[in-house]
Amino acid sequence: MSYERDNIAKLQAYVPGEQPQTGTVIKLNTNEHPDLPHQAVIDTLRTFDPELLRRYPSPTARPFRELAAKVHGVTPEQVIATNGGDELLRLFLTVFTTPGGKGIGVSDPTYSLYEVLAGIQDVPVTRVPRLDDWSIPNDFAGKLNDAGVNLAFIVNPHAPTGRLESVDTIRKIASEFNGVLVIDEAYTNFAEHDCLELVREGSGLDNLILLRTLSKGYSLAGLRFGYGIASNPDLIAAMDKARDSYNTDALAQALACAAIGAHEEVSASWQKIKAERQRLTDALVQRGWSVLPSQTNFILATAPAGIDHAVRIYQTLKENGIFVRYFNHPRLLDKLRITIGSPQQNDALIAALDNMN
Amino acid sequence: MSYERDNIAKLQAYVPGEQPQTGTVIKLNTNEHPDLPHQAVIDTLRTFDPELLRRYPSPTARPFRELAAKVHGVTPEQVIATNGGDELLRLFLTVFTTPGGKGIGVSDPTYSLYEVLAGIQDVPVTRVPRLDDWSIPNDFAGKLNDAGVNLAFIVNPHAPTGRLESVDTIRKIASEFNGVLVIDEAYTNFAEHDCLELVREGSGLDNLILLRTLSKGYSLAGLRFGYGIASNPDLIAAMDKARDSYNTDALAQALACAAIGAHEEVSASWQKIKAERQRLTDALVQRGWSVLPSQTNFILATAPAGIDHAVRIYQTLKENGIFVRYFNHPRLLDKLRITIGSPQQNDALIAALDNMN
Repeated sequence: MSYERDNIAKLQAYVPGEQPQTGTVIKLNTNEHPDLPHQAVIDTLRTFDPELLRRYPSPTARPFRELAAKVHGVTPEQVIATNGGDELLRLFLTVFTTPGGKGIGVSDPTYSLYEVLAGIQDVPVTRVPRLDDWSIPNDFAGKLNDAGVNLAFIVNPHAPTGRLESVDTIRKIASEFNGVLVIDEAYTNFAEHDCLELVREGSGLDNLILLRTLSKGYSLAGLRFGYGIASNPDLIAAMDKARDSYNTDALAQALACAAIGAHEEVSASWQKIKAERQRLTDALVQRGWSVLPSQTNFILATAPAGIDHAVRIYQTLKENGIFVRYFNHPRLLDKLRITIGSPQQNDALIAALDNMN
Repeated sequence: MSYERDNIAKLQAYVPGEQPQTGTVIKLNTNEHPDLPHQAVIDTLRTFDPELLRRYPSPTARPFRELAAKVHGVTPEQVIATNGGDELLRLFLTVFTTPGGKGIGVSDPTYSLYEVLAGIQDVPVTRVPRLDDWSIPNDFAGKLNDAGVNLAFIVNPHAPTGRLESVDTIRKIASEFNGVLVIDEAYTNFAEHDCLELVREGSGLDNLILLRTLSKGYSLAGLRFGYGIASNPDLIAAMDKARDSYNTDALAQALACAAIGAHEEVSASWQKIKAERQRLTDALVQRGWSVLPSQTNFILATAPAGIDHAVRIYQTLKENGIFVRYFNHPRLLDKLRITIGSPQQNDALIAALDNMN
């Protein structure tokens, strides 16, 4: 006998990128930062008072929210801290969509987790295809409004293409869209601009939430710490009611504070990754690949000889201990998504590609 | 304009016990363990490899599940690790109840979070009152079956009374109940027995899940680490589809392994708490209180002079920097729930009570 809900029974679970738990592979498949976390994070770990493990943590992660608010020029009431960006994404579904209702809207292709979360919540997904240059069509908000959608997601800069939409484009979509618009800024540390001005006082928008994570820019994928910044504190208050009551732990709160407290120093590492991004792009282009300009810590690269070539290269790299990401999506079959690693890792990738020829 | 779901808008959020974040108060209100975590946990913290913060963690907490399975005599496929017991409780609702459906059943009074989680999922709560001695009525499962309930919760040992039901009672309820039965064993480390034999091979039950947490018995409330042990791996597989994809972080996984790896040594601290529980019970009884026999790390104590007395004592203790728990529930108005603290903390409580007279 089966006890679970019908929609859960039917659900295809989200498949994370492969996470081999050994140190010997070169992992360029899940957009981790190649450097260790900032020394301030490691120092906080080493000196952490175990008394704080014994006690319950701040249920609202107040110290982190105050610090993040200061760094970003907003108020703590506009910030929610979560157990990774994953929890925040789930909360959006829980709070802003109704099971059996009209569901969510996305620009396609997008982060595959959104669709899984919609399946868990039992709501449909309206997909608006991106244009040939991967930009968002002008009528994006209109199409979602026509579909009656309550919640929309845009990854900006976009995964898996690396494209960045302008602040004006996002502002226009937010002002046209009737529901809550989430801008997933997981990769914003590697981009030329972010959308913070749209959630600050005076933006005139009441329906915008930015998602941030410490996984990529702060080398803390293992810590699971994300946060949301809303143009409207009411959106945060609604999510606060639905999150687990102690959703972030005492250690994670302390390390997260250390990380964003060091944001100016950490930003030097983002510059290094941008430089490596250009170097890897040039190296691939020289070898016959076409590579989209990227505003993230990965590139989407089209294999020189098409569909079979991409999947063959993916497989051969894997056999050589180098993991990159291949997507089984109609518009991505000839492409690989490659995380920008350390200079040594990127060299190893290039050497492995040269060895295939 | 309000963007959230109607049921979220109407929801009264869960109110955690007060968590003053200073070290000067005596906190006997949220059932934390008075000792620091075991030295093995602190050593793991001090020597943790920061490279593991940079990378994504094991998405399924495989090492922890293998260890927990060994400790408890089950298989890893019967275990799910979660971001505190809170996440596990929420997953039960998400996976085993349908919004708009028949909802959950509880024995009343019970942990108030269950009702909040039902409100988030938008399902009703069927309450079966406990008898005068706080035992579960014989027709508990029958009443829930009549109500068409899919999921039931029993806290055992019970909060806030400290009463422990026998294994046979739980077995009978599980075999009679048509849905999934959760036994919340948050306090089991302080009890004479647990229900592990009911989830081990050969129990004949396919619908039972035990909840465990490291918050109470392992002095790790700040870490947020819980887990479920199911009699039936299919229940775990269904919840695995609905949990956040990386729901426990690398640090928490490592510290949790260190904690349960030291379970034999940690159990000495449980004996100390049981001895203090008896001492505090005797001291209160000598002072005119009546105290229920407890199988947990707290006692439910009835104030000598009734309802007004309990709330007055609660307030006066708080003014003196001693926090205990008072519940606004019709059957609990003359009672206080007092966590068993260290010998010094318990002495301070007794002295404060004596000073009031």
